[in-house]
Amino acid sequence: MSASHISPLAPKNIVDLPPIAGFDMGAIASGERYANRLDLWVLRGQSGTQAAGVFTKNSVPGVPIIWSKNALRLSAQGPCLLVVNAGRANVYTGEAGRKVARQTAEKAAQLFGGQAERVLLASTGIIGQCPDITPIKTGLTAISQIMQPHGWEEGAEAIRTTDTFAKRASVTTQIYGQEIRINGIAKGSGMIMPDMATMLSFIATDAAISQGALQDILKDITDISFNAITVDSDSSTSDSVILMASGAAGHKPIEDAHDAALDGFKAALTELMQDLAQQIVRDGEGATKFFEINIEEAKDNAQARVFARSVANSPLVKTAVAGEDANWGRFMMAIGKTGLPLDEANISLYFGPHLVARHGAVDGSYNEDIGAAYMKNQDLQVTIKLGQGKGKAKMWSCDLTHGYISINADYRS
Amino acid sequence: MSASHISPLAPKNIVDLPPIAGFDMGAIASGERYANRLDLWVLRGQSGTQAAGVFTKNSVPGVPIIWSKNALRLSAQGPCLLVVNAGRANVYTGEAGRKVARQTAEKAAQLFGGQAERVLLASTGIIGQCPDITPIKTGLTAISQIMQPHGWEEGAEAIRTTDTFAKRASVTTQIYGQEIRINGIAKGSGMIMPDMATMLSFIATDAAISQGALQDILKDITDISFNAITVDSDSSTSDSVILMASGAAGHKPIEDAHDAALDGFKAALTELMQDLAQQIVRDGEGATKFFEINIEEAKDNAQARVFARSVANSPLVKTAVAGEDANWGRFMMAIGKTGLPLDEANISLYFGPHLVARHGAVDGSYNEDIGAAYMKNQDLQVTIKLGQGKGKAKMWSCDLTHGYISINADYRS
Repeated sequence: MSASHISPLAPKNIVDLPPIAGFDMGAIASGERYANRLDLWVLRGQSGTQAAGVFTKNSVPGVPIIWSKNALRLSAQGPCLLVVNAGRANVYTGEAGRKVARQTAEKAAQLFGGQAERVLLASTGIIGQCPDITPIKTGLTAISQIMQPHGWEEGAEAIRTTDTFAKRASVTTQIYGQEIRINGIAKGSGMIMPDMATMLSFIATDAAISQGALQDILKDITDISFNAITVDSDSSTSDSVILMASGAAGHKPIEDAHDAALDGFKAALTELMQDLAQQIVRDGEGATKFFEINIEEAKDNAQARVFARSVANSPLVKTAVAGEDANWGRFMMAIGKTGLPLDEANISLYFGPHLVARHGAVDGSYNEDIGAAYMKNQDLQVTIKLGQGKGKAKMWSCDLTHGYISINADYRS
Repeated sequence: MSASHISPLAPKNIVDLPPIAGFDMGAIASGERYANRLDLWVLRGQSGTQAAGVFTKNSVPGVPIIWSKNALRLSAQGPCLLVVNAGRANVYTGEAGRKVARQTAEKAAQLFGGQAERVLLASTGIIGQCPDITPIKTGLTAISQIMQPHGWEEGAEAIRTTDTFAKRASVTTQIYGQEIRINGIAKGSGMIMPDMATMLSFIATDAAISQGALQDILKDITDISFNAITVDSDSSTSDSVILMASGAAGHKPIEDAHDAALDGFKAALTELMQDLAQQIVRDGEGATKFFEINIEEAKDNAQARVFARSVANSPLVKTAVAGEDANWGRFMMAIGKTGLPLDEANISLYFGPHLVARHGAVDGSYNEDIGAAYMKNQDLQVTIKLGQGKGKAKMWSCDLTHGYISINADYRS
């Protein structure tokens, strides 16, 4: 796959990201692993900025994951810093990797203020290799000369590994009548080198929300955005979503995640995070089609999620989508393989608006021509109603193509 | 994929299957869906034959699965019959499908003896389409004219759908000093039409073992054979393993699965079932490499199994194997994504005999040349020791290649 290749599913409209009050930033080409491309990014929130994070559940997490989880447990003093490098993920690197993380945080705190232990770190790239601290220190020093409120676009570039496009989004909302802005960037799913497809996203807002409330909100919305996407069912050792709130908007600070004053903010954040999450799927390795799985009428939301995930991850479903094959039996197989109770007499399956099967057999109104025509769309929606209750879940996925194999199997002879 | 294509992993030596005392059989080209190829097989065990079965855990099982599970619950009278058709799997076919199953069993009982409710049925092929009962009835009548003790090879042919080779195995053992024979055939993993890759296996022996003991033995050995393989993590609605014992060997019947007299029998059956299971992986869609995942030193066998399954199913592991890429980080990711507790400091990973990583970092004795050379083998073994306890598990898998995508995504424009 050439560097100039861009996913056919990439968004047609590219948004500009304005500054967020209370934040400055800088990106540089450190040369740590990549030559002549942005690979190191610093985001700084003003003193008092609150931060929250959601991380991979992988049991062999990267060094930066362990470091950042601990950083979020410490009480806020001074500015809030985030340092991201792309190239080497600092995973499975032992004591050497821990030393690089500590030295990175110490250097950042020295240059940008605050405590080393509170610096948030994220890395993406090859695993099992320890990043070189020298270019990182030099790069941080250079960044300290160029910090400014603009630069989200460069940030989105700097955190890429083999993404075919940079992922960014910006929304506005209101809290107590005050305009609030949220910016977000993300990376994920492109992979050419022997790396894992780490998912990273960094989000900042000028709202004034306590760390505890931020954490609750971030966790809930991650479940219906970044945790509702799949490219290949594998989960990285380095996945991280960080949300920072500077409070610079100046409204009365909010402490409770359930405060009704946050309703608009949560809706806007959901929109932004689902947008970024879908952009990651749209950059899925080899993807040529995007599809949404809607599970409805499950016993509860938790079971709906298990069904949705099983369908969205199924190789036979994903290859059927790739082949524009209206093979509804594979969707049925994929809900069934969960082993959860099902009564086929109560299940109905839809391709977009078209009822395909219900009452345990193909519907009389359906024929193969309808299915074949629908599957030619680039964006697809498949809805399965289980007739069990009110549970529902959505997952977003992409097709499984020769491109995926080429990216992941063909780069060595 | 042309009909003449045979998997590069197919066994080099083809075994002959002698008759098993107490059984006769017959196969025919019924024309139900395929033209001019064997697609219908009947196996009959003499009166008193005991039978056991293990079936898919898929929650939307095919009609024959539901029928056969019920048949095994009924007490034995008269001969024991099995009828298998290939072409249409009779899954998600509603009342029409149930009628075809009932009529098939009734016709078989009328022609071959015994009770319709006790006939074991298995089907493989396209789902959502109901098999036509007329050619099945005509075919059964024709088979009733040609029943004979020979014919395992034709049986192995008749149960194929798009398998690239017929799978069969035969072993001998002893019970109470009496020679016992076990034959087995299987199908699975080839798929060109919009079907699911159903796994079927039928095994017969002349040993005298009670139905209860047979069921216990079959379940235990299925766990370490057919349930220890994966091609693409999807599980069919029609998977079935049937074991029949005619008792014709004439030794004292055995009622207890734990009877020490069965030790040799169990070892022989394990060998046969693992052989057949591995043949299925070796016919995995698009497979060019076979690999074994060995998990050792897990907390217990159950956790070892979860780790082994996660690695064996991982698309990034399977594409690394396809690409002959000694990308050990993907194996680490795949054990970690289970979410089960792990301490990377205690993990060691081996490619065949080569220690790759331990104590949380790549081992000093390892270099990329060693890994690259090892990955060129057609059969690979990866061992991961977790340093937690005595649990262990093995899984067999194949690589994920362009061939898999071609078979599953390319057959429709």
